[in-house]
Amino acid sequence: MQKQFRIGTSGAGLYEFTAHIADWVAGQGDGLATLFVRHTSCSLLIQENADPDVRRDLDAFFDRLVPTADDPSMAYLTHVMEGPDDMPAHIKAAVLPINLSIPVINGRMQLGTWQGIYLFEHRRHPHHRQVAAHFSSD
Amino acid sequence: MQKQFRIGTSGAGLYEFTAHIADWVAGQGDGLATLFVRHTSCSLLIQENADPDVRRDLDAFFDRLVPTADDPSMAYLTHVMEGPDDMPAHIKAAVLPINLSIPVINGRMQLGTWQGIYLFEHRRHPHHRQVAAHFSSD
Amino acid sequence: MQKQFRIGTSGAGLYEFTAHIADWVAGQGDGLATLFVRHTSCSLLIQENADPDVRRDLDAFFDRLVPTADDPSMAYLTHVMEGPDDMPAHIKAAVLPINLSIPVINGRMQLGTWQGIYLFEHRRHPHHRQVAAHFSSD
Repeated sequence: MQKQFRIGTSGAGLYEFTAHIADWVAGQGDGLATLFVRHTSCSLLIQENADPDVRRDLDAFFDRLVPTADDPSMAYLTHVMEGPDDMPAHIKAAVLPINLSIPVINGRMQLGTWQGIYLFEHRRHPHHRQVAAHFSSD
Repeated sequence: MQKQFRIGTSGAGLYEFTAHIADWVAGQGDGLATLFVRHTSCSLLIQENADPDVRRDLDAFFDRLVPTADDPSMAYLTHVMEGPDDMPAHIKAAVLPINLSIPVINGRMQLGTWQGIYLFEHRRHPHHRQVAAHFSSD
Repeated sequence: MQKQFRIGTSGAGLYEFTAHIADWVAGQGDGLATLFVRHTSCSLLIQENADPDVRRDLDAFFDRLVPTADDPSMAYLTHVMEGPDDMPAHIKAAVLPINLSIPVINGRMQLGTWQGIYLFEHRRHPHHRQVAAHFSSD
């Protein structure tokens, strides 16, 4: 079973879409759900879904790890055609995951209590992001 | 075929559990083994299993990349309720993998000669960690 | 269906092998392709395949994130038997992916327009790298 999900983003940050995938696999029995993001400037991340401070701190860390190209420390970047957040978005998409594989038992993903599924947008401008989803039954 | 493995940890660092998975897939023919850790403050890592210095250096690198919240460079962190290793553990769990998919031929994982499977604990206190394992036969 | 691909490298950097996998899954219908690199000093990466500057900038970023052991900032490294690029290669192989799972529809990987599949070599000397590939039909 396969489906493509579209996720709209309105700037950099984490967008939860756990419920979309949970609904999709509900009633499917046992198997494996695989998600794959079809872009090179955003990521897929499983992270804490309770305290919003975690998302804020993740944003802050990765913005410090990979500053935008107008920061003097990033003067060596050459791929800057689409703006100062262009190449840093590609770098973040290399450091962070672009696919996830989650075991499913009796129609329920085996996520831990505090795990949510997020699209991590690295670009400043709004985008429509495509996530290819695959489910194989046991 | 699915199973949940429990791994006890007694502080930050790498805990090998290759043999548990090797035993589990032995005799299963060809297929794909997928591991998924059900937490947001530890990781799954395949790394060199020969020289223990590799694990020590990995620890040292990631502790420098993501210092604990009591380090002045991390003063911007806000999610610090559970102590100075709380948010850094979430960050390491974003940088490092939380799932692995390993092809299996004739009951043997196609690991390279020097590859071992580790749980990478990022918290200081002891924890029981759950790894959901899935095997699909070809 | 399983196959092992061999990729020759002649120094650090990104080596595209998208076409090898595309040819392999062509005519296979729907399913999931999984790639797994059998080494701990190189990575698998999906990245922009249009502008070569992206690859150059990725190289530059990761060389700054993880300098070689002869850089004073890396004096703490102990696993340096095989040269100054030895332990940094293991660290890069922890930060960057070692496996990829890509949905396939009607014999075509669901890659985005700009996504290419690369082996990211972290060692300076030439190597033969093995990528274990697995395809499961829906």
